[in-house]
Amino acid sequence: MDLPPALRALVFDAYGTLFDVHSVIAECEALFPGKGAALSQLWRGKQLEYTWLRSLMGRYADFSAITRTALTTACNIQRLELSEAAATRLMNAYLVLKAFPDVVDTLSRLRGRNLAILSNGSPDMLNAVVRHAGLDQLLDAVLSVDALRIFKPHPSVYAYAAQRLQAPASAIGFVSSNFWDVAGATSFG
Amino acid sequence: MDLPPALRALVFDAYGTLFDVHSVIAECEALFPGKGAALSQLWRGKQLEYTWLRSLMGRYADFSAITRTALTTACNIQRLELSEAAATRLMNAYLVLKAFPDVVDTLSRLRGRNLAILSNGSPDMLNAVVRHAGLDQLLDAVLSVDALRIFKPHPSVYAYAAQRLQAPASAIGFVSSNFWDVAGATSFG
Repeated sequence: MDLPPALRALVFDAYGTLFDVHSVIAECEALFPGKGAALSQLWRGKQLEYTWLRSLMGRYADFSAITRTALTTACNIQRLELSEAAATRLMNAYLVLKAFPDVVDTLSRLRGRNLAILSNGSPDMLNAVVRHAGLDQLLDAVLSVDALRIFKPHPSVYAYAAQRLQAPASAIGFVSSNFWDVAGATSFG
Repeated sequence: MDLPPALRALVFDAYGTLFDVHSVIAECEALFPGKGAALSQLWRGKQLEYTWLRSLMGRYADFSAITRTALTTACNIQRLELSEAAATRLMNAYLVLKAFPDVVDTLSRLRGRNLAILSNGSPDMLNAVVRHAGLDQLLDAVLSVDALRIFKPHPSVYAYAAQRLQAPASAIGFVSSNFWDVAGATSFG
């Protein structure tokens, strides 16, 4: 990955970009055989939906609470009985999501170029997953929308990254695999 | 349906509440045999997603444009080839959505009690579907978010209904089958 010299910082999305949200499938499958992949898809879908709806309503709840509610909804839709123990196990799986295979290598090569995460995740979730994947030594900052109490792709989130990284948005490379996040960053500038 | 006397107006959601968005399944099925129901689900899902994302980004596009883009995306995801003729046919199906079976009866019984639609739909889409279902004589107002250029469940949408109907939100009954719309109206007051 070659970085244009004009870029003063690189900001990565976490969930779906650095970390594979579907690494929870194994735990889902262990609890609900044959339903793991579908549950993971639906869980992720509801999680995103709730971030957008709550942002639009001006009713923030942190990503951990939203992820937990989304899990309940996803199980209800699929008529899966979710015990408290199973919910805890699945929520814990979110704290140990796997980084995609090329993440450590790529970040290592870019080391020292002002690398940050900008994520919907709440700080506790982010810190856990970053540390578990061994990325804490490779990143210069881990920024959570929790400071703003509104989720991506609201423009204020991208503005916050620019402010924290002390660089204009045009000098920051936003890296995301989520189309709506790419759209949000592009729309912001 | 009994209406508390304190209510000065009843405001109905259109798509999914008065009109069955999945009445497009027949057309979807005719074009893509065996895939109609799945396409309709995905189409609706993407349509909603885009309304929320665009509202959050402050990048409004009207519901007709969003519905058309959502159709393309849904077909792409399902690897269905969408010709321009097929797209036109499906978009036209949205203009003749069926009202749910009890809608005409219910609105007829409530006639004269300040009945309105408050919808994400663009005025052209709403007028067509309302007229096709014969609801134009039963409603006192058809309000579109297009006047505000932001979609439900942003609070300004519910405020707009209150302003247009000259009644405080607490004296308006908001009727919707969409949980996120109910949440939005409740959150607004």
